[in-house]
Amino acid sequence: MPRLLIQNVDAITLDEQNRVLKNTNIAIEGKRIVAVGEVPQGFVADETIDGHDHVALPGLFNAHTHAAMSLQRGWAEDLPLDRWFNERIWVAESALTEEDVYWGAALAACEMIRGGTVAFADHYFWMHQVARVVEESGLKALLAWCVFGLGAEQEIGGTTLERTVEFVAQYQNAADGRIKTILGPHSPYICSPEFLRRAAEAAAKLGVGIHLHVAESQGQFDQSMREHGKSPVAHLAALGVLDVPTLAGHTICVTDEDIAILAEKRASVVQCPKTHLKLAMGTTRVPDLIAVGVNVALGTDGAASNNDHDMIGVTRLAALAQKQARHDPEVLPSMQALKLATQNGARAMGFGDSGVLKAGAAADVILFNFNRPHLRPRHDLAANIVHSARADDVAYNIVDGRVLLRNGELTTLDEDKILHEAEKRAFRLVGQELRMVREYKA
Amino acid sequence: MPRLLIQNVDAITLDEQNRVLKNTNIAIEGKRIVAVGEVPQGFVADETIDGHDHVALPGLFNAHTHAAMSLQRGWAEDLPLDRWFNERIWVAESALTEEDVYWGAALAACEMIRGGTVAFADHYFWMHQVARVVEESGLKALLAWCVFGLGAEQEIGGTTLERTVEFVAQYQNAADGRIKTILGPHSPYICSPEFLRRAAEAAAKLGVGIHLHVAESQGQFDQSMREHGKSPVAHLAALGVLDVPTLAGHTICVTDEDIAILAEKRASVVQCPKTHLKLAMGTTRVPDLIAVGVNVALGTDGAASNNDHDMIGVTRLAALAQKQARHDPEVLPSMQALKLATQNGARAMGFGDSGVLKAGAAADVILFNFNRPHLRPRHDLAANIVHSARADDVAYNIVDGRVLLRNGELTTLDEDKILHEAEKRAFRLVGQELRMVREYKA
Repeated sequence: MPRLLIQNVDAITLDEQNRVLKNTNIAIEGKRIVAVGEVPQGFVADETIDGHDHVALPGLFNAHTHAAMSLQRGWAEDLPLDRWFNERIWVAESALTEEDVYWGAALAACEMIRGGTVAFADHYFWMHQVARVVEESGLKALLAWCVFGLGAEQEIGGTTLERTVEFVAQYQNAADGRIKTILGPHSPYICSPEFLRRAAEAAAKLGVGIHLHVAESQGQFDQSMREHGKSPVAHLAALGVLDVPTLAGHTICVTDEDIAILAEKRASVVQCPKTHLKLAMGTTRVPDLIAVGVNVALGTDGAASNNDHDMIGVTRLAALAQKQARHDPEVLPSMQALKLATQNGARAMGFGDSGVLKAGAAADVILFNFNRPHLRPRHDLAANIVHSARADDVAYNIVDGRVLLRNGELTTLDEDKILHEAEKRAFRLVGQELRMVREYKA
Repeated sequence: MPRLLIQNVDAITLDEQNRVLKNTNIAIEGKRIVAVGEVPQGFVADETIDGHDHVALPGLFNAHTHAAMSLQRGWAEDLPLDRWFNERIWVAESALTEEDVYWGAALAACEMIRGGTVAFADHYFWMHQVARVVEESGLKALLAWCVFGLGAEQEIGGTTLERTVEFVAQYQNAADGRIKTILGPHSPYICSPEFLRRAAEAAAKLGVGIHLHVAESQGQFDQSMREHGKSPVAHLAALGVLDVPTLAGHTICVTDEDIAILAEKRASVVQCPKTHLKLAMGTTRVPDLIAVGVNVALGTDGAASNNDHDMIGVTRLAALAQKQARHDPEVLPSMQALKLATQNGARAMGFGDSGVLKAGAAADVILFNFNRPHLRPRHDLAANIVHSARADDVAYNIVDGRVLLRNGELTTLDEDKILHEAEKRAFRLVGQELRMVREYKA
């Protein structure tokens, strides 16, 4: 098995003691970290990385995104949620082809690898094309084929429940275990109760979970109360959806009772702070969720609202947005914010062996180059990463022991070709008369 | 005069028609832009920059900062404002030497040039040392020597009103006109009314303005009502401070009457959104200020609260924070946010010939490299800069026609030496028993 040694590096371990180690070593064998600290006797590395003035961190987990929406970056600006959906997103997506999804996801993959993301939870269409990108790029992913349950004539992207069930069965643990799958009914505000119940049953039978959008706005909350007499979370619980492992995107408008349900059902909630700020959606109640033991992770959401796949930026915004919303500068300190972005995401996505630097953990490691004026002085390495670092400071991105970014150079993807092809397709996608398939109300 | 030509570049002009020009040219002679579009006949460039896949924007103006506080980056984390001041900032600053200010400001200058900032409004101590950095770096600046007016024994950093008056007289229009000066009484919550009145009189006599901190918290607002029977803004107006050109930092807690006063007195207000979010201070009422014609600019504030000098990041946060605070995703669209960060800052800082790409304007121009996955596709160049770009995408930074950053390389500063020396001084500054000079209440 290939052996990789990172020498003389500072390491934010995110272990149970929150240890920050100065001038240490990380030894990797195959897909595993075998030592942090002393290099094991007789360990001969195939590749050695000089870690001087670099800081190692467990790799970042983007726990809610729609990677191929990078094609719509900058295409739906400064709009309220209903116009954002009806005039832009669902119009462009109705012209989406399989190949568009491949190139859009590949564009996102370039960006994610460069920014220290090691895994992404993707929720979109034509997901075998995203699986292709995962296989080629070396990233990890939890893939959900989004399905609306509206009947064939209103669907886009090949979505039927049967098709997505087939996808799960075919791709679970593909790409040498780097691909995990999950069912992806869109949301309780689009999917019918009967459809959600069927999706939950299918997930239980397949032994997978469900990834969906929950309670993104007061309008959605009110609609749920009107139509079902229950909050979105209570509605999902009543349908049995939360009885399978649930990845609940956004989850902004929740009551105290909803939070208790999420805790009891062991759901994971994904805050997407940039989308929430940009579309003025409010703030996920992260401290309240954490207080009762809900697993809270972070995501970028798609680039049509978030405008990038920068998990460093999202981690910073998560901390800033919580401090502001709670009127409390002590909320979500840097070390905790980093855990949300790493090990909590890993747990939410079924990669529980990642998110910590210690012997036995998955070798998902990123290195920041601290030879940058905005990262000096080094009074507090965690604060410097959360509040000063940028995606571009990531010099190395290592996934399952494989170097995907080496000193700023991508090793697996042809970036020039991807930039060109993705942009060409993006211009076509937004440039024609398009068929609209549904309307967002609420 | 040296001639510089930027060829085949896309340009966000920020002119009155908000023109975005594709594949155009920018011709510079000496300190001025002489043409945007057709290259003048007979124009022979000393240096030509290939602008393919790059986007030109007027340079960024950081209208409120304390550059040398970069030495305290990461030193006062996750604390409320009173503990932030009393346990950290004012303690460390009591040990500050002149040379510390030089190296701290130099560290900030490296970061600012790299991130597309062409000018900064600095408010700190030992300002002749900051002037040294401005001269050496090629940046522009509006410099204020901060003064508390508490009496010699309580001062740090050589601050007395007489000393700062002398500084203004000596440095106004130094560094070939790149340095402008302004008086810097700290704030109405620290300075006595009598001292503020004297400062305003001195400023009027010198023909300069006043740069100070205004209404940063509800506590300060309440204190002002208690002690003076007036809001901070009304108090400053009554003392005559607003009768000279005023640069009002933060200015968060204001009434509708305060906003009318600021408009009538033609004050400039500087929102520092990252500090405001991180210390949970609230949100400057930017749309209300703009509605009545107040000139609103943006600043990073010092790195002890903002943690960097990244004006791209601040521009994005300004837009995001306003959308969230107003529950309105249409507030502060990208083109307007860019104007706050450029021409409004220029106007606030007395460089009114900057902040636009057109013939006759100052040649303060930055170029973004759009050959990056997070900047494609190019549906909306302004949105891509505000919501997707990062400081590291700035490839060229040109101030008064001089190239300070050339394809990512600093041309005027010795970055390696500055990183080393600044960090050494930063560790000394926070590592010893220190004398505290005042207490923040409110």
